[in-house]
Amino acid sequence: MQKTKAISQQVIKRLPRYYSYLGYLLESGTLRVSSMELAEQMSLTASQIRQDLNHFGCFGQQGYGYNVKVLREEIGRILGLDRTYDMIIIGAGNLGQALANYTKFEDMGFVIKAIFDINLEICGKRIGSCEVKHIDELEAYASGNSIDIAVLTIRSKNCQEVANRLADIHVKAIWNFASFDLRASKGVVVEDVHLSDSLMMLSYSLSNNV
Amino acid sequence: MQKTKAISQQVIKRLPRYYSYLGYLLESGTLRVSSMELAEQMSLTASQIRQDLNHFGCFGQQGYGYNVKVLREEIGRILGLDRTYDMIIIGAGNLGQALANYTKFEDMGFVIKAIFDINLEICGKRIGSCEVKHIDELEAYASGNSIDIAVLTIRSKNCQEVANRLADIHVKAIWNFASFDLRASKGVVVEDVHLSDSLMMLSYSLSNNV
Repeated sequence: MQKTKAISQQVIKRLPRYYSYLGYLLESGTLRVSSMELAEQMSLTASQIRQDLNHFGCFGQQGYGYNVKVLREEIGRILGLDRTYDMIIIGAGNLGQALANYTKFEDMGFVIKAIFDINLEICGKRIGSCEVKHIDELEAYASGNSIDIAVLTIRSKNCQEVANRLADIHVKAIWNFASFDLRASKGVVVEDVHLSDSLMMLSYSLSNNV
Repeated sequence: MQKTKAISQQVIKRLPRYYSYLGYLLESGTLRVSSMELAEQMSLTASQIRQDLNHFGCFGQQGYGYNVKVLREEIGRILGLDRTYDMIIIGAGNLGQALANYTKFEDMGFVIKAIFDINLEICGKRIGSCEVKHIDELEAYASGNSIDIAVLTIRSKNCQEVANRLADIHVKAIWNFASFDLRASKGVVVEDVHLSDSLMMLSYSLSNNV
């Protein structure tokens, strides 16, 4: 536990990349990987890779490299992937539905337990394994069920109000797809996924030939 | 044009955030905004905001602030949002379908012209305004149609091969949703959206109480 706490933010941010790539290697039947190969994939030097992995006590063997399965499990443990998380989705539009139907997240331990929407026409419909509930049922649901992560796929103008309601019912983490930056309440972690921003960086590059 | 080229990467990366927030203000009927208000939303200082905006010749008036509409249009121009982009989606699964049905991108000028998939069962089906084509038709389609951006929503193990094919037909930009980091060909811009990474940062925070 001490070891984990000493890891810098920069290294932490690279862990999901390691985890995904190691999963890809595992799927393709690769048992061992060298720091050189990891370096090439991660756009780092082999020495940086070794430093990163030494941080949490994973040492490759000279000439043999790292055991892909063991390394992935260790990184998964640090990332908190050795348990499951109860998720709810707020917003049952196209994006909310796509995320609800995306089985990969559930395979990783992120289990969608409920979906809420404000639109009465969609309430009661089944998406994936959940029936869409009205957003007014949020507090009642929370009183009887655990919620680790709330996924926001609603319009920007409503997201701050919903974020405040989520804080009131002690939801600890928000995965925010609205293009609005939330003012997070104390003790609530927010991860923003600004899809439009990413698209605008592409149009910038295309327009300015960079 | 000279002015645009002198803007640093750090400032460029903030432009989509300005653009989105100004859009939100415009939608809610706000005509003027001060550097203080922008600073609060962007988690920067008012002085940094003024520096950012001065870069491309936008000067707020003391006591009046910035004209929201004019500022947003100017930032949109720099981001290349004063034209439209022809997009194709490769992968007609849940995510590909959600993106194809998401009208906001089209409103911004990113128009989905075609969707491709490898699965014969989904080919011929209509998603949004497009009929899903087989991936083998990609090269023939490209010979008669312009493609500015290709959106990849396919499995990681296939994405490098598809990226190489896209480079061969001179697609200049890839919006990559696969969890695999592409080795981009020269002259091809890649924007990665690693949804799983973002989710893993949440599980890390929840597990380590950060």
